[in-house]
Amino acid sequence: MARKPDWAIEKERARRGAGGGESTVWLFGLHAVRDALRNPARKRKRLIVTRNAADRLAEDIAASGMEPEIGDARKFPAPLDPQSVHQGAALEVEPLDWGSVSERCAPRGEAPVVLLLDRVSDPHNVGAILRSAEVFGARAVVAPARHSSPETGALAKSASGALERQPYLRVTNLARAMEALREMGYAIVGLDGEGDAELGEALAPYGDQPLALALGSEGPGLRQLTRDLCDTLARIPASGQFGSLNVSNAAAVSLYAARRS
Amino acid sequence: MARKPDWAIEKERARRGAGGGESTVWLFGLHAVRDALRNPARKRKRLIVTRNAADRLAEDIAASGMEPEIGDARKFPAPLDPQSVHQGAALEVEPLDWGSVSERCAPRGEAPVVLLLDRVSDPHNVGAILRSAEVFGARAVVAPARHSSPETGALAKSASGALERQPYLRVTNLARAMEALREMGYAIVGLDGEGDAELGEALAPYGDQPLALALGSEGPGLRQLTRDLCDTLARIPASGQFGSLNVSNAAAVSLYAARRS
Repeated sequence: MARKPDWAIEKERARRGAGGGESTVWLFGLHAVRDALRNPARKRKRLIVTRNAADRLAEDIAASGMEPEIGDARKFPAPLDPQSVHQGAALEVEPLDWGSVSERCAPRGEAPVVLLLDRVSDPHNVGAILRSAEVFGARAVVAPARHSSPETGALAKSASGALERQPYLRVTNLARAMEALREMGYAIVGLDGEGDAELGEALAPYGDQPLALALGSEGPGLRQLTRDLCDTLARIPASGQFGSLNVSNAAAVSLYAARRS
Repeated sequence: MARKPDWAIEKERARRGAGGGESTVWLFGLHAVRDALRNPARKRKRLIVTRNAADRLAEDIAASGMEPEIGDARKFPAPLDPQSVHQGAALEVEPLDWGSVSERCAPRGEAPVVLLLDRVSDPHNVGAILRSAEVFGARAVVAPARHSSPETGALAKSASGALERQPYLRVTNLARAMEALREMGYAIVGLDGEGDAELGEALAPYGDQPLALALGSEGPGLRQLTRDLCDTLARIPASGQFGSLNVSNAAAVSLYAARRS
């Protein structure tokens, strides 16, 4: 049997990482559940709502064709963390499949911006980053399948709807994704407190070129291999000697600085 | 008896709002507890640590002169929310007193930047904002005493040490604080999705002037009175039709855009 082409293997791997292989996810909260009900690409399994939430979501439930299970607010039967602010609505879904990096990030005559997250594991941070990526029009957020936050209800809540609309690709190997981006003409700028140049300065040469911005997790930052694969390392200018930005704030600042006019 | 001068009343009110009148706060987590132990301005009441945390904090505990109570990790005796990641360390403290707006924000020959938070109540957001404010060297973060997040353990954790160093002033009346800032020569720029000008454009005239950036809570945004007291309303440029930034991300972007060279 002939060897499958690379893209096919990559795609299958991505599928396995982002979909079939992973268990389903319980989304919760009126906002997140509503957005997932409205998303035609979302594969839905079970919907549990209180009477009150059923009323508030009535239109979207009807349009989705789902048969909701009605649960009691005080003993809400969905398997959620006890501190989840579910507002009487929970929806079991499959993770979204956004395809491969080469499909999703192909420039197609534009100069897109892509975010690379190197092991950012906190779902609140990843959710906020998806939200910012959508606001600033980033083409995709790319992260390794392992050591990154999977789609979770908490991530969806922090993303405030962006999880349904902002491509979040989890790849087997971040280094290989970076190489694929470079082959498609992307410049890759890593964010790093010890970066050679200030952010604005570092981005200036790439104003009309596809651009990938790489951010590491808090504490360890970018891994050595990720740093080595960046064209340049940029630092966000700081006034004091103390502290560093939260990773979602660093992502927002970078996306703002890299915005296309 | 003579009427007290305004500044004295304001100061007393601020004290009542930010200190004496409020109950104490339990900080938790190795990082937050360590930073509070190192802060000479912090009034400390009780320290509860596991043996393990006592070892890890030994130097700072010794330097603080506190007598720690040793607690069992599995039945940690501090009155914390069950989901608090305390890492075996909890410290009861009084809120910090950063003085009045007129003392703290006086320009003194510089062009400082101040953040105004109009009813931002989520402690994680306020914590992340204090962290960004410190990184970008903001003189203070000012918020009304009511409807804003007080100092809490969760706020301290999100602030990642900045709570001990970044002035967070809670005032009785935000409008009056804005008037005090204006009298000291501040320009006031409000962040608003419907703003007249894009952020960079809106900030351009104020490059060498003291600057206050006003941000509202998610959803309602700035209150009408707050909007009316701004010199101009600025919007963060967005590409898509959907979504808006999380308030801490909007604050970080604004502080970056307003940085002094």
